[in-house]
Amino acid sequence: MRILIDGFGGDHAPDEVIQGAADAVREYGVEVTLVGDERILRERMKVLGVEPRGLSIHHAPEVVPMEAEPASVLKQYPESSLVKGLELLRDGGGDVFVSAGSTGALMVAATLIVKRMKGVARAAIATPIPTNAPAGMTLLLDSGANVECRPEMLAGFGIMGSVYMRRIAGLERPRVGLINVGTEETKGTETLKAAHRLLGEAPVHFVGNVEAREFPLGGCDVAVTDGLVGNVMLKLTEGWGKAFSDMIKEMFMASGKSKLAALLVKDGIRAFKARLDYTEHGGAPLLGLRRPVIKAHGSSNAKAFKNAIRQAKGFAGGEIIAEIEGAIAALKQAAPEGEH
Amino acid sequence: MRILIDGFGGDHAPDEVIQGAADAVREYGVEVTLVGDERILRERMKVLGVEPRGLSIHHAPEVVPMEAEPASVLKQYPESSLVKGLELLRDGGGDVFVSAGSTGALMVAATLIVKRMKGVARAAIATPIPTNAPAGMTLLLDSGANVECRPEMLAGFGIMGSVYMRRIAGLERPRVGLINVGTEETKGTETLKAAHRLLGEAPVHFVGNVEAREFPLGGCDVAVTDGLVGNVMLKLTEGWGKAFSDMIKEMFMASGKSKLAALLVKDGIRAFKARLDYTEHGGAPLLGLRRPVIKAHGSSNAKAFKNAIRQAKGFAGGEIIAEIEGAIAALKQAAPEGEH
Repeated sequence: MRILIDGFGGDHAPDEVIQGAADAVREYGVEVTLVGDERILRERMKVLGVEPRGLSIHHAPEVVPMEAEPASVLKQYPESSLVKGLELLRDGGGDVFVSAGSTGALMVAATLIVKRMKGVARAAIATPIPTNAPAGMTLLLDSGANVECRPEMLAGFGIMGSVYMRRIAGLERPRVGLINVGTEETKGTETLKAAHRLLGEAPVHFVGNVEAREFPLGGCDVAVTDGLVGNVMLKLTEGWGKAFSDMIKEMFMASGKSKLAALLVKDGIRAFKARLDYTEHGGAPLLGLRRPVIKAHGSSNAKAFKNAIRQAKGFAGGEIIAEIEGAIAALKQAAPEGEH
Repeated sequence: MRILIDGFGGDHAPDEVIQGAADAVREYGVEVTLVGDERILRERMKVLGVEPRGLSIHHAPEVVPMEAEPASVLKQYPESSLVKGLELLRDGGGDVFVSAGSTGALMVAATLIVKRMKGVARAAIATPIPTNAPAGMTLLLDSGANVECRPEMLAGFGIMGSVYMRRIAGLERPRVGLINVGTEETKGTETLKAAHRLLGEAPVHFVGNVEAREFPLGGCDVAVTDGLVGNVMLKLTEGWGKAFSDMIKEMFMASGKSKLAALLVKDGIRAFKARLDYTEHGGAPLLGLRRPVIKAHGSSNAKAFKNAIRQAKGFAGGEIIAEIEGAIAALKQAAPEGEH
């Protein structure tokens, strides 16, 4: 299997990308192609002392800046690592593409280059968030690509997320929940009510509306929302994680006595941190495209890139995309377009 | 000043309501009317050993059950403590009404009985949430009454929240933020873009779009959202609070060593808990009505009711409603109806 990775995406590119890729080659037995400026990549590999075994380079002289307007990336940065990597994926030069670059740019470029699969109205960003659910995380989608969604898009997210979690997290029957203001099926907007009906007919284990309070507590394995609510949930979760971590740090740093306490529970603190660590669960798959693409966290370090590559291996090898296509087609038959 | 309080709202009614009311009479020099079944209230006061000084009772033989359909409360429970209390408020029998009953029922009944103020399209539930903002909390509105909102409703929420926070929390220029998926004014739905324009013209200190990540960190004093996003934020915050508290408990209860650590930082743990304690900031005002109404938390104990009464005193005494009416009128002039 060949993993393609954007050598110039994220805050710590290219060094941490290179290191993570090298570690992944060694640990997971995959081949990795780093996409980016060949001269720079070779030079940094030498500086980092990284062996080229299992690693190759696909040249792309440009870099997409974080502030680039997603819609114009293809025109403005045709030679970028992002665009070149996606083209290589489309053309069969690799099995999956990983990038820690701008989410918006990746989503737009991937949709234009790799294209959506048949029957999928919109692709979604599916972010794994650490929760008390059995997999240690809940997949939240859409977490930001589509601020407004029609009911059939939301139903599609449920199907895609369910297949992904079954295949990747090994859950037999992932519990798919629709994030809403109450558990009764009469709650929420007309869109949410219609999505509730569609999900009830879809080939997933639909557990109905789920209130956001239950999300951290593991109330579902796949949380379906539009990209506005999903993005707010993702970022609010990040914010509370930061706020709580700061509070705990403050608590333990207050005095000599509290510093001693920190020593006594240092394993507990480590476990606490590990549980909130996004790098453990890899990146966010873009679901609904014809080939697998993964968005790694912008602040990914080598370990996070390595985990994203492990996840990419599962995504590429699991026939997930073929299965999603089949499930979407089944939904279409159950509820033909235009009915809702 | 006379505070009216629903004697039969909340999980711990009527005992904790009575106790909280008695404590408030003593501490804040207000008079309190308990609304509810007179015989039961008198009996419980006797059992609790509560002095009737400063306390009176307004008889209402019925109780609205939590599962009651909000829209039918007026017809089905005309003699309930909720309905009778709101009627008493409307008729001048008190200056403010506090209830820990069902949020939906309170909002619908209050809108029908007390009525919305002139120029306000929809009343909102404004929930104070503990954050790192200067007031120790951020006012989140709407936190659940209106799942879909037009731009002028969102602008109205910003104005109402701003006046409330200036008067109640004593902030000179409360920072009003619009919760959105990014900070640029081009982000989000058409509704959010239009609301951004309206808030920019409104008589408030508008700080623009605020990402949910900044909410816990104190990025604004008033967070404006529709009731769907607001409700998700409120409940997700509750969920993470619970999840983090459980994790900390687990960390400190793991072993003898960790229990010793807990002793060493017990002041810190207490401060941590206090910071997450909803009772510190009282209840959620319903903003946009002609008379002040406060929704206390359903699980309120005596201390929470006492704090809600303190807050009610400020709400009733602060000419907040008159000021909101003036500000809304100013917005209407700047952006006449139908323009957006």
